[in-house]
Amino acid sequence: MAFGWIEEQARGRHRAGLVRRLSPRPAASSLLDLASNDYLGLARHPEVTEGAARAARTWGGGATGSRLVTGTTELHAELERELAAFCGFEAALVFSSGYAANLAAVTALGPHGSLVVSDAGNHASLIDGCRLARGETQVVGHADPQAVRKALATHEGTAIVVSDTVFSVDGDRAPLVRLAEACRERGAGLVVDDAHGLGVLGDGGRGAAQATGLAGAPDVVATATLSKSLGSQGGVVLGPAPVIDHLVNAARTFIFDTGLAPAAAGAALAALRLLGREPERAARAREVAGELHARLTASGLEAVRPDAAVVSVRAPSPEQAVRWAADCRTAGLAVGCFRPPSVPDGISRLRLTARADLSGAEIARAVRVIGETRPEPA
Amino acid sequence: MAFGWIEEQARGRHRAGLVRRLSPRPAASSLLDLASNDYLGLARHPEVTEGAARAARTWGGGATGSRLVTGTTELHAELERELAAFCGFEAALVFSSGYAANLAAVTALGPHGSLVVSDAGNHASLIDGCRLARGETQVVGHADPQAVRKALATHEGTAIVVSDTVFSVDGDRAPLVRLAEACRERGAGLVVDDAHGLGVLGDGGRGAAQATGLAGAPDVVATATLSKSLGSQGGVVLGPAPVIDHLVNAARTFIFDTGLAPAAAGAALAALRLLGREPERAARAREVAGELHARLTASGLEAVRPDAAVVSVRAPSPEQAVRWAADCRTAGLAVGCFRPPSVPDGISRLRLTARADLSGAEIARAVRVIGETRPEPA
Ligand SMILES: Cc1ncc(COP(=O)(O)O)c(C=O)c1O
Ligand SMILES: Cc1ncc(COP(=O)(O)O)c(C=O)c1O
Repeated sequence: MAFGWIEEQARGRHRAGLVRRLSPRPAASSLLDLASNDYLGLARHPEVTEGAARAARTWGGGATGSRLVTGTTELHAELERELAAFCGFEAALVFSSGYAANLAAVTALGPHGSLVVSDAGNHASLIDGCRLARGETQVVGHADPQAVRKALATHEGTAIVVSDTVFSVDGDRAPLVRLAEACRERGAGLVVDDAHGLGVLGDGGRGAAQATGLAGAPDVVATATLSKSLGSQGGVVLGPAPVIDHLVNAARTFIFDTGLAPAAAGAALAALRLLGREPERAARAREVAGELHARLTASGLEAVRPDAAVVSVRAPSPEQAVRWAADCRTAGLAVGCFRPPSVPDGISRLRLTARADLSGAEIARAVRVIGETRPEPA
Repeated sequence: MAFGWIEEQARGRHRAGLVRRLSPRPAASSLLDLASNDYLGLARHPEVTEGAARAARTWGGGATGSRLVTGTTELHAELERELAAFCGFEAALVFSSGYAANLAAVTALGPHGSLVVSDAGNHASLIDGCRLARGETQVVGHADPQAVRKALATHEGTAIVVSDTVFSVDGDRAPLVRLAEACRERGAGLVVDDAHGLGVLGDGGRGAAQATGLAGAPDVVATATLSKSLGSQGGVVLGPAPVIDHLVNAARTFIFDTGLAPAAAGAALAALRLLGREPERAARAREVAGELHARLTASGLEAVRPDAAVVSVRAPSPEQAVRWAADCRTAGLAVGCFRPPSVPDGISRLRLTARADLSGAEIARAVRVIGETRPEPA
């Protein structure tokens, strides 16, 4: 049987307690949400959902083609102008997802003969980008500018260094300034994925590149998703205009993909404008994260000090992490649960996301539930 | 300079006349559209745009997380049930794009030690899927079941054969029944990308797998996009339930990607239901394609007989293809233009898409403009 091996693998997963299942959520839930990436609480904001609705009515349900054929509308161009201006880059290019944006950036900027230096903790989409790129990839230790330096020294010719700005598992920040120094010593480009930084870091949420003075530099490219702080769907690559033009001409996930749906572009644009008017949302997300961390640590849990809005709490084992998350859910709290093979270091954890719109009482409730359901140490 | 090589490449592209530029379109255009993939004319249908608007209001601007965390809603589950039932498969899984769906299907079904046999004319997303898959890829000649047989004979162990159902460049159909036979002789799985078949081929647009009696077979998987006939954004993989469960557990572009935006799911669901009520739209798209082809051929142009709703017209050279498409545009007609490096065989062409909602007068006007602007033969 053609797919017989799949049922065998499924049995193995079942035995190991590693089966993943989808649990569809209803439109209105009484769960306290610390699992989504809706950092600014904008996905359900009426301005954002009306932005989506209006765009669908004005522009249609889909973009109808590749961005190079019929898939670019004035709405896409407007979104790109405002994203570039907000984040402090010369130009921007919008994709159907952050995943597609990362594949585009890494493949188009890591051509044959080049070196791509990639942090060991990078997101799956950057890793897939490295595997698709025609250049040679060297994976270096996590958040280690000295290792980056060493890797760059092995290569003559063009090179890029690729890193998340905020790592999705532990929520820790990359040493961007030191990475940029290492790049500049060798004339390498720096490509950073700001999926978890946009809307949270920098002045009013302008992102990690702005926060570190790297936005707009001629040798820096940032990518981001429209699906987290901006409460929508889609991805973006930000950089110098010639780099963006190059992506238009060379990036397969741009050329051979249907343009982002108007509704998604409209929702993201509405969220971006809202954030421009209410810049305090970014600081509040960081504040909530800090408060969560302080209280969890005070109650004896092992939580990583958050650099942005992700708070990671260690669990003794994959099984206990799963049970812990399930027990939280039973108690009315949704938390994320990361375990092998989604964690590079094999350590399972609960993953909490701080939303700017969480109240003090909600934070207290979340910490109480997490403490009460915690597993016995192994 | 880190990205200095990019400006050099740009100069090369410029000299070769191969620069691609984005031209944003306004919301209301007087151009006659034969360039989009909106085969059934549903992208602007009020039921579809209202489907998007309602979903955004009910579910939010974005899915807020991976489908495995907070990103699966009852709306996604509903869309998956109806897509599976419509196309005649046991189960379905929805992705953020057709590109992501193809990467998922090929990588998850082409693991280490397996063979992936891929048609030379396959879409970029299938090719990237082959490059990301851990199995070994063999590329075989276009639409050649005998070559597939030979490739399969070189390998012991699991194998899949991957093919578009309707090839995006020329609009020709794959020999699906004979491919399935070749697969079955060797116990290989068949994975077909029905991006250009869903909504156009099969009873009432149920797609190429239904049209050929392959839908629902235990060894057949189909992928499709929600961005063409369904006028939205997103992708889907259709297959036996264990295969779909396997994707949930193994496909990186599913696990590490934010779920499809509710508005896109809502628009696709509305389009699907509309198509269920108005099955004649599918036959009409094919009829329009046939009429376009007959009239173009009658006026002496070299057009490929359409198997679905794509009509391809050969151009003497890349430069003339570009000028031809531009001249059509000046005359009020939008057509697609394929040229190197987007065409595997190096032949440039105009690409016309037949929309079910084109009137006889519009077809006549399109053919007249294409004839009047045709370049002198080389
Ligand atoms: C660091 C990082 N990069 C990229 C992505 C992909 O973005 P998207 O979900 O928009 O495809 C994600 C999460 O989904 C992420 O966490
Ligand atoms: C044959 C084929 N497969 C897959 C895709 C990708 O689908 P999507 O645009 O939804 O990513 C396309 C076109 O875009 C296509 O033509």
